Amino acid sequence: MTATLAELARLCGGALRGDGARRITGVASLASAGPCDIAFVAGGAFRDQLHGTRAGGVILSAQDLGDYAGDVILSDNPRLAFTRIAVLLHPPPRPPAGVHPSAVIAADAVVAADTAIGAQVVIEAGARIGAGAIIGPGCVIGAGAEIGAGSWLHANVVVAHGCLLGARCVVHGGAVIGSDGFGFARDGARWEKTPQLGRVVVGDDVEIGANTAIDRGALDDTVIERGVKLDNLIHVAHNCVIGEDTAIAACVGIAGSTRVGKRCTLAGQVGVVGHIEIADDVHVMGAAVVSHTIREPGTYAGSPIEPYQDWLRNAVRMRQLDDLARRLKKLEQRIAALSEGEKQ
Amino acid sequence: MTATLAELARLCGGALRGDGARRITGVASLASAGPCDIAFVAGGAFRDQLHGTRAGGVILSAQDLGDYAGDVILSDNPRLAFTRIAVLLHPPPRPPAGVHPSAVIAADAVVAADTAIGAQVVIEAGARIGAGAIIGPGCVIGAGAEIGAGSWLHANVVVAHGCLLGARCVVHGGAVIGSDGFGFARDGARWEKTPQLGRVVVGDDVEIGANTAIDRGALDDTVIERGVKLDNLIHVAHNCVIGEDTAIAACVGIAGSTRVGKRCTLAGQVGVVGHIEIADDVHVMGAAVVSHTIREPGTYAGSPIEPYQDWLRNAVRMRQLDDLARRLKKLEQRIAALSEGEKQ
Amino acid sequence: MTATLAELARLCGGALRGDGARRITGVASLASAGPCDIAFVAGGAFRDQLHGTRAGGVILSAQDLGDYAGDVILSDNPRLAFTRIAVLLHPPPRPPAGVHPSAVIAADAVVAADTAIGAQVVIEAGARIGAGAIIGPGCVIGAGAEIGAGSWLHANVVVAHGCLLGARCVVHGGAVIGSDGFGFARDGARWEKTPQLGRVVVGDDVEIGANTAIDRGALDDTVIERGVKLDNLIHVAHNCVIGEDTAIAACVGIAGSTRVGKRCTLAGQVGVVGHIEIADDVHVMGAAVVSHTIREPGTYAGSPIEPYQDWLRNAVRMRQLDDLARRLKKLEQRIAALSEGEKQ
Repeated sequence: MTATLAELARLCGGALRGDGARRITGVASLASAGPCDIAFVAGGAFRDQLHGTRAGGVILSAQDLGDYAGDVILSDNPRLAFTRIAVLLHPPPRPPAGVHPSAVIAADAVVAADTAIGAQVVIEAGARIGAGAIIGPGCVIGAGAEIGAGSWLHANVVVAHGCLLGARCVVHGGAVIGSDGFGFARDGARWEKTPQLGRVVVGDDVEIGANTAIDRGALDDTVIERGVKLDNLIHVAHNCVIGEDTAIAACVGIAGSTRVGKRCTLAGQVGVVGHIEIADDVHVMGAAVVSHTIREPGTYAGSPIEPYQDWLRNAVRMRQLDDLARRLKKLEQRIAALSEGEKQ
Repeated sequence: MTATLAELARLCGGALRGDGARRITGVASLASAGPCDIAFVAGGAFRDQLHGTRAGGVILSAQDLGDYAGDVILSDNPRLAFTRIAVLLHPPPRPPAGVHPSAVIAADAVVAADTAIGAQVVIEAGARIGAGAIIGPGCVIGAGAEIGAGSWLHANVVVAHGCLLGARCVVHGGAVIGSDGFGFARDGARWEKTPQLGRVVVGDDVEIGANTAIDRGALDDTVIERGVKLDNLIHVAHNCVIGEDTAIAACVGIAGSTRVGKRCTLAGQVGVVGHIEIADDVHVMGAAVVSHTIREPGTYAGSPIEPYQDWLRNAVRMRQLDDLARRLKKLEQRIAALSEGEKQ
Repeated sequence: MTATLAELARLCGGALRGDGARRITGVASLASAGPCDIAFVAGGAFRDQLHGTRAGGVILSAQDLGDYAGDVILSDNPRLAFTRIAVLLHPPPRPPAGVHPSAVIAADAVVAADTAIGAQVVIEAGARIGAGAIIGPGCVIGAGAEIGAGSWLHANVVVAHGCLLGARCVVHGGAVIGSDGFGFARDGARWEKTPQLGRVVVGDDVEIGANTAIDRGALDDTVIERGVKLDNLIHVAHNCVIGEDTAIAACVGIAGSTRVGKRCTLAGQVGVVGHIEIADDVHVMGAAVVSHTIREPGTYAGSPIEPYQDWLRNAVRMRQLDDLARRLKKLEQRIAALSEGEKQ
């Protein structure tokens, strides 16, 4: 794929400065780009690399331009502009449509004509695969499950019986959608398994990372709303609801029946306890433990969680704890001495 | 499946109050139940929903009954009663017995006649699959491994060579049982792999969650005792022993050669260091780090771990740290001033 | 396999003391070893078991010998000596060379003649499998990926398109190498997926644990250097570089573009933020959060991280926090009283 800088500027809604006829064939980082590549600048670390770059074009904001004399596309959102250009120049290598002969598809499954069903796939009774979907090698789609149009499941993904995925979802290798929730009743010391009768319902444009596990609901459904992005190795327990456009980084665990709001971000290794709510537009720093409901938008950190500014003040003191304790001890001795002095 | 309230009361050993002839066809939550559904109440949050419910029957304890006038089953353990009724009314959708033609089964593997072996399964030399077991699509059962009677492995589970699972186990998608333990010897800067010669031995009635990994022992075995319940994305290292009826929530990691007692609960994201022991009946709160042996039953929390009540007192102070440091500073200034006063 | 003690001493470069003609057939722990087994002692806990052992031979250092009168091999590095003897006596059960008829191999994939390709495997277009490699059942090797000579992939591993593994690597069940990095650009509230165009490049002699996930780079590659050992359920984000001979324990998460040095160790559940560097020879204690670049070799702990000795001093105080707060309160009252006294 090749395009002129002028075409790329038009594609991403940016303003061209320089040679619009220059031909661009790929995207690259500032450091590794050559004269046929386009790169981008987003913030400080990038800016330092700008003058050394050999990139044929650079996408940047007007304030990052400085005295750079090369060909550029000016954009208010260089990262987004770059993303759209990358999608154009580097469409992901799609497998050709068709059903691999080694795939096992139940007689009553409904598979749209232009899908790509990979080798060693299993599609069970009554499942439905939407138009243009790609089911990677080794995937297992359970009975009655539905995969929306244009969704792409990479290798060895499991979607259990009855679960629904929307359109244009991306699911990475080894992810499991619809495992049983962790629900047991006690009979004395022993546990008896409570049937997990709900489904996982995933909206459109959701991305789910490698080896992430999302449990089906106990009675009602587990819900992942439109536009949610889940990274690798995340655990979402039964009956959680994750709100639209929320992004969750790797290794996060969310316990049962918790609702996470819309447009939230949870950084890596965050833990969220069960049966609570996180409001819309909440941002949680890495490794924090969300131990109670958060009603106000904002940024939070710590374990247990607190507003970020409070956490920052307290976290600094953590490293001074031994010093604080020693100073306290000294004060106690001083005051004991002063009191002695008074008595005399 | 349909049953009368009287039949359900008998099944779960509860006391019927109301119309024993009422026909019930399913279980549901209080909020979504209709006149043919049975729901249950267990504690405060549920109680508030009781009067609005349209459920045909409700299982609850005498103290939660209040003035509720609908048909009920009184039970000392409503959650357990509900579980048993749910199992009756909603038996999980079992695949029919038989071996899928795409499954690859070694000539000398022993597969009981009434098992259900799914599509794309691999069963290696000398493996044994017990009566009534279900091996889901894409599972791999290694050479000489044994799966006990009535066990159910969901899709894409791996049980490595020589590992043993007891009867009636449930293993969810993507779990790996019997990967090598993380054992290496140093030769200067380089690591040399120590062969991992033990097995994983899993007792009866164990449940193992999606994408959980249990390593085989180095010399002796890794042991998961009867009735243990493991949630998703748990790591159990080589030579651990997990005691009977212990339940471990998602994202927990347990380092090598550690023994966890019977009837313990470890909440989500707990970390446990290697070569220690946790006594029977220990409960560890979420995200705690068990850094040393625990000899006494009870509840623990924190990182490093402490008894829960101590942790609670200290954790409150964590949020006051900056305030404490400021007050200490002020005191130091006051005392310096007082001392100055004394000298004069 | 059987060998004499003298042969084993020669193999591991140790000094024989006792009956060199004694025949040894296996390795075992001190506690379970019999007269045909060899065991080893490494440090205190083992030493206590030495006198009770029935082992035919014991590998140990001169300082651990004491008055033990049995047949021994003296070694400066008993663990390494034991490892080499274990490899000799217990070679792992290799599947026979050959391609299982159920494997699906693209016409233009290049598979060396003496490889063992398991049942239900998928090898896509242009992939290359090196001499002597073992591809376990259910593995998926993406288009253009390369697996080095002598590498062993256990069951259900995914290596995505274009990724490279070196020679003699070991990858455990369910690991995913080459999933997309978690890269999105914001368009208002919505996320747009940035194509992930880099690869994962894995050096020689790397081990990767069960259900670990390593993301491909965004533009440049994610790099795992020679000799790195990764345990289970680890997340390595896009564009990370993990230096030679570094060992990382289970449940660690490393965010994007971070460089970990050579010969480091990260203990279980450590979190590492993105875009930082960890120097060579850094050791991080379990559950620590590496929140900033570490320039000095040494041992670190805590969340946020600090040098281990500092952390130790402060961590002790954490359990005294409530006590410290109460003592501070008392001091404030005493000083208020003293000041009152002064005024009078």
